[in-house]
Amino acid sequence: MKTQVVIMAGGIGSRFWPLSTPEYPKQFIDILGCGRTLIQLTVDRFKGVCPMENFWVVTNAAYVDIVRKQLPDMPASHILAEPAARNTAPCIAWACWRIKEEEPESNVVVTPADAVVMNPEEFRRVINNALAFTSKHDVIVTIGIKPSRPETGYGYIKCGHKLSDDGEIESVEAFKEKPDHITAEKYLADGGYLWNAGIFVWNIGTITHAIETYKPNLASDMERMKTDADVQSVFPNCEKISIDYAVMEPAAAEGKVYTHPADFGWSDLGNWASLHDKLSHDTDGNGAVGNIHLYECNNCVVHAEDAKKVVLQGLDSYIVSEKGGSILVCRRSEEQRIKEFSQN
Amino acid sequence: MKTQVVIMAGGIGSRFWPLSTPEYPKQFIDILGCGRTLIQLTVDRFKGVCPMENFWVVTNAAYVDIVRKQLPDMPASHILAEPAARNTAPCIAWACWRIKEEEPESNVVVTPADAVVMNPEEFRRVINNALAFTSKHDVIVTIGIKPSRPETGYGYIKCGHKLSDDGEIESVEAFKEKPDHITAEKYLADGGYLWNAGIFVWNIGTITHAIETYKPNLASDMERMKTDADVQSVFPNCEKISIDYAVMEPAAAEGKVYTHPADFGWSDLGNWASLHDKLSHDTDGNGAVGNIHLYECNNCVVHAEDAKKVVLQGLDSYIVSEKGGSILVCRRSEEQRIKEFSQN
Repeated sequence: MKTQVVIMAGGIGSRFWPLSTPEYPKQFIDILGCGRTLIQLTVDRFKGVCPMENFWVVTNAAYVDIVRKQLPDMPASHILAEPAARNTAPCIAWACWRIKEEEPESNVVVTPADAVVMNPEEFRRVINNALAFTSKHDVIVTIGIKPSRPETGYGYIKCGHKLSDDGEIESVEAFKEKPDHITAEKYLADGGYLWNAGIFVWNIGTITHAIETYKPNLASDMERMKTDADVQSVFPNCEKISIDYAVMEPAAAEGKVYTHPADFGWSDLGNWASLHDKLSHDTDGNGAVGNIHLYECNNCVVHAEDAKKVVLQGLDSYIVSEKGGSILVCRRSEEQRIKEFSQN
Repeated sequence: MKTQVVIMAGGIGSRFWPLSTPEYPKQFIDILGCGRTLIQLTVDRFKGVCPMENFWVVTNAAYVDIVRKQLPDMPASHILAEPAARNTAPCIAWACWRIKEEEPESNVVVTPADAVVMNPEEFRRVINNALAFTSKHDVIVTIGIKPSRPETGYGYIKCGHKLSDDGEIESVEAFKEKPDHITAEKYLADGGYLWNAGIFVWNIGTITHAIETYKPNLASDMERMKTDADVQSVFPNCEKISIDYAVMEPAAAEGKVYTHPADFGWSDLGNWASLHDKLSHDTDGNGAVGNIHLYECNNCVVHAEDAKKVVLQGLDSYIVSEKGGSILVCRRSEEQRIKEFSQN
């Protein structure tokens, strides 16, 4: 079986305004200040898992040029341009149907474009384990992150039993929605719960059959998408639904979903707090990307890679960001209001 | 006598970084957000005092193109390009010697390019009064601003007696350096002290004779500056001295300096506090220029005319400024450190 990697890169990252905008969202930004954008880092961490010609990117039509520029080695025909955002189920279905057409005996990894992994070597080991499993079994594997804190921003996976003859893989009993804090603490104490990272591994037969079973309308939409014109007319009318609701939950209820618990320093970089967490800090707890000069500042997170020079004095626990001529200065405690700020 | 206006526009405005930079200093910035730069406002307030062909600008050679662009009606030959900054005495002497050459029977107003006047009508009345006086008398007139607070950032003029037959003009007893706070309070209580605004009125015979008398070396330097090549070789070696030390103080000691007390809403815009003072405020005491959106901010002064959009949340008494890709956020109480911030 050939391994294929599908990168979902259609998000708009509104919580990172002005760093991330609908015109140029965060997966295309060097958000960590390391010289590589998030989608480039995502490709990098699959180096060795499969060759570049087996990578696929599903993104909004508006971002195709950015993808081409940032991933020049990506085959142009593997950049799938969504005419409209329809959530993850149609996105994943499209990529998998295209792969089925090109190489039906494929083993597939699906990943978001905007997460970070601090230990790519361990990441590859886990992915290769999962691929080995799905090459032999007709099952879905989701990568489960061992939780390090009672996080309320992620969905959880409740594990079942360990498979005696397949190393680290465990069965999934159920998926759990984002919990409140008390529930998250219970999950952490219980030890049998993992974060759902949205990284899936399966073979093409398994996933296409699963979609035919649980979302027959979506499957028949996919069968109708033979030409570009078909895509333009069919895709925008696909049901807007996540892969979790469309496939993972019903499949888990039938005992067909497994998880590979993992600990490779994963973060979804979903908010400024998680970015602050991943940046290296000065002695006052500030994390900064750009030509940033700080005086009497503490626990700030600053991102202004395009700015010539930024001088900040006397700020405690603020977010400061500049991109494309827009500037944000905001208390870290108020970061949930940033989307509102960007729209007013 | 023809009236001529000399605008001194060679400063670098380092206290307003990043709004003002050595490449593009504050006199060329629309610092009040009114659609006109400070040098344009300076020209505007002399409308009617004399025609445009009688305006002169003395500035650094680096700023000549900016002056031409901002004052397209200014005669090109009246833009004097200093090859080096030598303080105000050589600057004023050069302009006055050039005027003497072109129109020896001139009556002259010398003004900085970067002050603001809130009541230009009253300004013109005062200037015309002073010009009428110097057209008849061989004296120097300096405009004295009636103090509204015990300001320690300005020099003061100690008034002598009022001239019975010349309206509002008074004799000057002495110039006083920037005082400490207690002295400034005494000056204010005394009532006989005015702020020295650096606006001078005299006829060409008076000022050239005064420079010949008090600074004969500077006068002979001026006599040697016949060609551009002369300017390049002579001007950079002129003594670096202010007009106050070179002429005003010795002339005042001999009773040859007069002042016109005035109250036309003058400010030298020398720091962010004075800019905050001159901007209109929202109900929370913020003054802002640009597309600025404020949430829970108080008593801030914000200038970011070039930025696409600025969102500030939770700032109390801060300076926020952006220009040319550089950004400053700094407590208002720390504004004396801005020059240091800009250089590090």
